[in-house]
Amino acid sequence: MSHAILLISCSDQKGITAAVTDFVFKRGGNILHADQHTDTHANTFFMRMEWELAGFTVPRDKIADEFRSLAERFRMDWHLHFSDQTVKTAIFVSRHLHCLYDLLFRYKAGQLPGCEISLIVSNHPDAEALAQQWGIEFLLTPVTPQTKEGAEAAQLAKLKEKGISLVILARYHQILTGKFLQHFTNQVINIHHSFLPSFAGGSPHARAYEKGVKIIGATSHYVIEALDEGPIIEQDTARIDHRYSIQDMVEVGQDLERMVLYRAVRWHLEKKILCYGNKTVIFD
Amino acid sequence: MSHAILLISCSDQKGITAAVTDFVFKRGGNILHADQHTDTHANTFFMRMEWELAGFTVPRDKIADEFRSLAERFRMDWHLHFSDQTVKTAIFVSRHLHCLYDLLFRYKAGQLPGCEISLIVSNHPDAEALAQQWGIEFLLTPVTPQTKEGAEAAQLAKLKEKGISLVILARYHQILTGKFLQHFTNQVINIHHSFLPSFAGGSPHARAYEKGVKIIGATSHYVIEALDEGPIIEQDTARIDHRYSIQDMVEVGQDLERMVLYRAVRWHLEKKILCYGNKTVIFD
Amino acid sequence: MSHAILLISCSDQKGITAAVTDFVFKRGGNILHADQHTDTHANTFFMRMEWELAGFTVPRDKIADEFRSLAERFRMDWHLHFSDQTVKTAIFVSRHLHCLYDLLFRYKAGQLPGCEISLIVSNHPDAEALAQQWGIEFLLTPVTPQTKEGAEAAQLAKLKEKGISLVILARYHQILTGKFLQHFTNQVINIHHSFLPSFAGGSPHARAYEKGVKIIGATSHYVIEALDEGPIIEQDTARIDHRYSIQDMVEVGQDLERMVLYRAVRWHLEKKILCYGNKTVIFD
Amino acid sequence: MSHAILLISCSDQKGITAAVTDFVFKRGGNILHADQHTDTHANTFFMRMEWELAGFTVPRDKIADEFRSLAERFRMDWHLHFSDQTVKTAIFVSRHLHCLYDLLFRYKAGQLPGCEISLIVSNHPDAEALAQQWGIEFLLTPVTPQTKEGAEAAQLAKLKEKGISLVILARYHQILTGKFLQHFTNQVINIHHSFLPSFAGGSPHARAYEKGVKIIGATSHYVIEALDEGPIIEQDTARIDHRYSIQDMVEVGQDLERMVLYRAVRWHLEKKILCYGNKTVIFD
Repeated sequence: MSHAILLISCSDQKGITAAVTDFVFKRGGNILHADQHTDTHANTFFMRMEWELAGFTVPRDKIADEFRSLAERFRMDWHLHFSDQTVKTAIFVSRHLHCLYDLLFRYKAGQLPGCEISLIVSNHPDAEALAQQWGIEFLLTPVTPQTKEGAEAAQLAKLKEKGISLVILARYHQILTGKFLQHFTNQVINIHHSFLPSFAGGSPHARAYEKGVKIIGATSHYVIEALDEGPIIEQDTARIDHRYSIQDMVEVGQDLERMVLYRAVRWHLEKKILCYGNKTVIFD
Repeated sequence: MSHAILLISCSDQKGITAAVTDFVFKRGGNILHADQHTDTHANTFFMRMEWELAGFTVPRDKIADEFRSLAERFRMDWHLHFSDQTVKTAIFVSRHLHCLYDLLFRYKAGQLPGCEISLIVSNHPDAEALAQQWGIEFLLTPVTPQTKEGAEAAQLAKLKEKGISLVILARYHQILTGKFLQHFTNQVINIHHSFLPSFAGGSPHARAYEKGVKIIGATSHYVIEALDEGPIIEQDTARIDHRYSIQDMVEVGQDLERMVLYRAVRWHLEKKILCYGNKTVIFD
Repeated sequence: MSHAILLISCSDQKGITAAVTDFVFKRGGNILHADQHTDTHANTFFMRMEWELAGFTVPRDKIADEFRSLAERFRMDWHLHFSDQTVKTAIFVSRHLHCLYDLLFRYKAGQLPGCEISLIVSNHPDAEALAQQWGIEFLLTPVTPQTKEGAEAAQLAKLKEKGISLVILARYHQILTGKFLQHFTNQVINIHHSFLPSFAGGSPHARAYEKGVKIIGATSHYVIEALDEGPIIEQDTARIDHRYSIQDMVEVGQDLERMVLYRAVRWHLEKKILCYGNKTVIFD
Repeated sequence: MSHAILLISCSDQKGITAAVTDFVFKRGGNILHADQHTDTHANTFFMRMEWELAGFTVPRDKIADEFRSLAERFRMDWHLHFSDQTVKTAIFVSRHLHCLYDLLFRYKAGQLPGCEISLIVSNHPDAEALAQQWGIEFLLTPVTPQTKEGAEAAQLAKLKEKGISLVILARYHQILTGKFLQHFTNQVINIHHSFLPSFAGGSPHARAYEKGVKIIGATSHYVIEALDEGPIIEQDTARIDHRYSIQDMVEVGQDLERMVLYRAVRWHLEKKILCYGNKTVIFD
């Protein structure tokens, strides 16, 4: 059964919840989830409303039009989604395949609702066999300082051709340029192998080892031009001790990365994430 | 500033969210929090709605009357609370004082909003000095098989006299009778020193040691007549290993107990807990 | 580089550590790890000693003979392992393949040192394609009350033929008989999808849902004849709340199961586990 | 019963474990714990050896002399402790008293073995009543830029007078100078209210809020002159979400701080911590 999902943010005002609830109810919508949050610090209101399309008196392609005047009254920033829309997805990897492997299994197991993995992109050939095995198109774009511009152009062309609306950087060790990112605002999810803001940039485990931390982490975030600085979606941590070599930390870290990236992708697919400032609201 | 809080449960029907939201909005209420949950398994709907009394056009002592017809239409089970109501509280302890000590510090630090600790009850004199130091009345009711009935009667009389509406069993090692409990439905919170349903009853750490578990826990729950069987409010766990003696487990367990009991008490005070069947909904 | 590993348990006596250390040192062994534990409750001493074979003056096939008199003096229960010995392993599964899939990836990634996965056994054909893809022999042994005895006989014959010394039950939903298990004492590792001793037996997630627990878990253990009662090797837990359906719990549980089973298998391969009574010592 | 504890570090060489073990055994010592670690990266060996003094043939005041030649042979950095030595301790606080309150309760409960809390020092009078209640001397040393030097001098004089060998900074919001610290190498333990190296310095929770992290932490470490840069002893983390205000984060953080500081102090008292480079080994 299909649902409509409204994601709303605006400056906090009296009556928003009632107005949106009323909008849905008056048109016969059965509300499934309604979650809201007010950041009193930023005086901003956030809402996620999900209702059944069955029985709703407005056809799905007219809902946005119908909602517009209400949205304008409250000066909302808003997005309307439908739960049955397919999100065409590309996964970028380099040589570490643990996150890719994990996402593919979850994909098959039905844990990525609405996702269609249409493309795997890499600067190395390591993932090619896996792509083939799963019947997913593989694009090899080796990157050197000389070829970087061309590689990005080839990637962009292929993403456009395939109608990709979500890019997952599942340990892709190349920095995407602003030129690339402008096509995918809040549509590129990265996994970083540290507990940000600690150890942004390269070799986080070696630096964590050097520092002698007792806990390591992983962080998934939307990608912006500033490296490892985008809105954080999810984090997790694991305890280590002095006996852990850097390689031990890498292995424990990979288990964190798989979980933390998966949760971010899942919440993105379920339209549970709202970005504001450089932060995220994650609705239940 | 004072708020009204409505806790609602009823069988799931279309339009409940809209009706309740509308009720508040039409009377000038500014909604602060609205959280809902549907247990599709039990076909039951749950809601918590919190709004500011300032600007609300119905005086607080008329709100219940005004809401009644709506409640009856949906056959709701409902409770209306006000955030500025004081919850007179009694803490029962035996000889382990870590939870009592912890609650008293949080009380002073302002972490128990709306709570007034009016009484400490014990079957042992150990907590008396602490009660005195904090200026809280102390009731000593030694319990033997012979005196148990009288002890409970004395406790009940004192609770009534003090107008107690919340009883916290902060490691009170006596079983309360059904006769006692009938006066305090979902108003007695216990902390059990195991991860229930494992190791209900006595000596949970010794039994966990014997079993060789690698993780221990603590559980807070509302008390019902069946021992350690009431609706679970909160749980937490901690990792141990083969080096932990029973005494080590007791110490780690006490740190869990303090946290798990505190959270339950806090949520109770904030009216965030709804019981149904033998389970709880904990609203955000 | 190859190492020797001694696992020792005996009643606690003065001088054991010194005697064993001396044994290794006098023969030119470079000690890499020495860990010990005394269960004062059971008056039992446990030790794990690992040293380099390079430079050791006793050839590896004579070490056991040489150690015997010392072992007898302290009435030790002891096992001598070598880090370069291959552990031929069979994985049993039914229809849930997440643990199998996870172990295969770790196998390829080098996270299962010394392991050779030689066989996948199932009562269902679901895992056959995966086995083929990885080039691992697959044995299909459908089980009904009528065929159970024959199925176990076929399994045992194949395990013997392949020289299997470790059986991993990676969500194999059949109970192995004592007849089977007598061939594999402390060599069969199971993953159970609950935090034992809670919810032993079938449908643990449905029962956890019914009970309203706030945390779920998974447990890996050596298999003994009594169902879900063998020595616990590892456990882990994850927080849930009232919004989790049984299916949500199953999914969160699967992520726990993968981790908890992997750790048990890894520690087994590294000879870090010592069983006593019905418990385990896990050396660092 | 009294134990001797040897903490040893030196460059990694063959035979150290055997030599130290032999030293104890030959003199009739019953080894209770022996733990070792080799940092292959730094080619450094670490050891902690604990044995009973009862039955040891060397009187306690001669043990160091007796051990010296062995220590010199391996060029060890070593310390000999006795489990029955009292560690006179001063706790420094400013206005947040949760850690002080927690340590005092654990002190009374016997969770700080060997510790004698002889002094509470503060730049504010807030803790004075608590000190009085516990019968512990209280030193008030208000700090302004003008009085800082004098305040430190007064503190040092009092610490010397009382024979203090451990200083706990239980949320003391003043920076100790190098002049002060030179008297207490690896004897000053601080609790910082962030997961270091993230958010070193002031207002870590406000900065974590701004950053939008999903997990916060606390870190205990030995104090060196560089602010928040000393060897990390222990860390822990807690999950938060977008609903947490800065004040909520402060409260959750305080619960972490109590645990993380306590563990560090306990391990210090038990002589389980060895510093090297700017890191720590924590023996079991």
